[in-house]
Amino acid sequence: MSLTIAPGQTSIKSKAAVAWAAGEPLVMEEVDVELPKAGEVLVRIVASGVCHTDAFTLSGDDPEGVFPAILGHEGGGIVEMVGEGVTSVSVGDHVIPLYTAECRECKFCKSGKTNLCQAVRETQGKGLMPDGTSRFSKDGKTIYHYMGCSTFSEYTVLPEISLAKVNETAPLEEVCLLGCGVTTGMGAVLNTAKVKAGDTVAIFGLGGIGLSAIIGARMAGASRIIGVDINDSKFDLAKQLGATDVINPTEIDKPIQEYIVELTDGGVDYSFECIGNVNVMRQALECCHKGWGESVIIGVAGAGQEISTRPFQLVTGRVWRGTAFGGVKGRSELPGIVEQYLAGEFGLQEFITHTMPLSDINQAFDLMHEGKSIRSVVHMSM
Amino acid sequence: MSLTIAPGQTSIKSKAAVAWAAGEPLVMEEVDVELPKAGEVLVRIVASGVCHTDAFTLSGDDPEGVFPAILGHEGGGIVEMVGEGVTSVSVGDHVIPLYTAECRECKFCKSGKTNLCQAVRETQGKGLMPDGTSRFSKDGKTIYHYMGCSTFSEYTVLPEISLAKVNETAPLEEVCLLGCGVTTGMGAVLNTAKVKAGDTVAIFGLGGIGLSAIIGARMAGASRIIGVDINDSKFDLAKQLGATDVINPTEIDKPIQEYIVELTDGGVDYSFECIGNVNVMRQALECCHKGWGESVIIGVAGAGQEISTRPFQLVTGRVWRGTAFGGVKGRSELPGIVEQYLAGEFGLQEFITHTMPLSDINQAFDLMHEGKSIRSVVHMSM
Repeated sequence: MSLTIAPGQTSIKSKAAVAWAAGEPLVMEEVDVELPKAGEVLVRIVASGVCHTDAFTLSGDDPEGVFPAILGHEGGGIVEMVGEGVTSVSVGDHVIPLYTAECRECKFCKSGKTNLCQAVRETQGKGLMPDGTSRFSKDGKTIYHYMGCSTFSEYTVLPEISLAKVNETAPLEEVCLLGCGVTTGMGAVLNTAKVKAGDTVAIFGLGGIGLSAIIGARMAGASRIIGVDINDSKFDLAKQLGATDVINPTEIDKPIQEYIVELTDGGVDYSFECIGNVNVMRQALECCHKGWGESVIIGVAGAGQEISTRPFQLVTGRVWRGTAFGGVKGRSELPGIVEQYLAGEFGLQEFITHTMPLSDINQAFDLMHEGKSIRSVVHMSM
Repeated sequence: MSLTIAPGQTSIKSKAAVAWAAGEPLVMEEVDVELPKAGEVLVRIVASGVCHTDAFTLSGDDPEGVFPAILGHEGGGIVEMVGEGVTSVSVGDHVIPLYTAECRECKFCKSGKTNLCQAVRETQGKGLMPDGTSRFSKDGKTIYHYMGCSTFSEYTVLPEISLAKVNETAPLEEVCLLGCGVTTGMGAVLNTAKVKAGDTVAIFGLGGIGLSAIIGARMAGASRIIGVDINDSKFDLAKQLGATDVINPTEIDKPIQEYIVELTDGGVDYSFECIGNVNVMRQALECCHKGWGESVIIGVAGAGQEISTRPFQLVTGRVWRGTAFGGVKGRSELPGIVEQYLAGEFGLQEFITHTMPLSDINQAFDLMHEGKSIRSVVHMSM
């Protein structure tokens, strides 16, 4: 599988699923990928999960979405070539691409308070590498990067600071899910909320993120883990992973927050919104216990949407916060999470309901929209 | 001044400023005060601050407001008589009435996470003592308690768990302000936000609460303390107490949150809303630093009003919380704050812009509405 580069060669060919325009299916193409520049790394993607965020951008609702682009941000791969000055990864290393970089030099990285490294944020948001250009093209036409990852491509290029080097014995077809969903849900519980043994927890939305939050709550030793979804078909897996209660808000006769407050004698210690619905975000806050309950927003709402509540909810002790990538610093902490997976502390197979070759990736979006999948993983070698 | 009770006597006479109806001036009356029942304490009020919350309830906008009532909740007094079973205070003790009780037995007190004791909350909200009755009347007509304190009366009755016993060398005409405003503002900074040396802080609204927050920020060693108010006349005292910058939002050419984000290279570490204006609450959140900034709501908004923001503000690391009575557990912690005052760690005289006899209390409301006072303190003996 190793790549051979001829002298003077400046790009390679790669198969990729290209999003030519918002709202259209992805199209399999052979694209040109420029070789990595200084501080950059060429990665051969082995597998990639398909996440709701990919679908959100593809729909055209994402105000930051640029087209044409190669989507995908939940991948696992192997380093094929490093650019000048790259020291933290070498050819052959197994890596997970990070949509939240970790430069270790910016104000944010140095603060010790957040994982939101800002080093490449501005260009990443525009679909470009840090030097302001793209590495992808097709017949000379620029194709944009996506979330700094573009994992729906056999080959992709990332900044060195956007790669977590992980144990090479970990199956990339599984740990790719740690590149987004699973880490986000688990991290929200363990890093952001810091749920402790005996705490009570409510999790709104039982997709990949919500189920991962259940796993995190179970790992933390939460005494009660309440899963909420309007789709009953999610409940079996939720219970299997650790939910002690499951509630369908459409099947109860009062607002869900009131129901949970009564069920838990005052409300939960922590709640998590894993959907991106601003009304559910309010419900999640208001089901928290007076005096100390904290609600964490994980889901990403549509452009322009707002959350609201009575300030009394906060003045009486509830806390409203959010999280991105579970508060995890990718290069420093993701390798440890892979080790936890290898040690059997949590599973990933339960999330992978479908696998398919990259060429069938549009099916993954269909399955997601139909609510039939937790995660589809595309395998580049299939 | 000591009270003499005849055998069989069940009540005493007391002068009091009575709020007979919403929107009307208080009326000086001689009222009947029933002697304390089991677990209750009769307190002779020496002085009481007049707070915006008194004015809010008097205006009729407070949905919990009941009339007729004896308002006032920021007092200092001396125990005159204790009911059966009272053990924590004795006749002659100097006390500060607490609108947030501390029973030390309820789920909230035992949690170690909040000062919001719920022991007497339900009856207190209805203007009644814990047994569901009032101790105040006039010609047989019931007059209600207010916030469990009713300090606009020469004599008042409180549950034992609603009294902080403080050092008797502290002047009650000054430390009465620790019964609400000053403790609320200082506590929000020191207890709720836990501001540390070097942190940057923005404080919205420079009335009694906001100025107290400035004092708290100075005590914490904040490196930058930005005071915000639309009334320039507040700025001199704010600077005297420790504000490093003062901003009038009506005199800048951009939204205040953008202005502060630019001024502080990214936003402040902590912000405090000390007004009760839901739009300002949003500004206070949004001027916080991405990744870690926390905003604390102290002000009480009007009934039915809501706060709102884009959830992105929270997902990118800002935290929205609130506080009541500065997170201070009154019986356990207020005595220590009085000691800090006696040790000269902060001043109270700066807050007291006006003093007057109880009979002139309506002037105190006028001064407040005209923005001419920080705090007026009524002295019962004047």
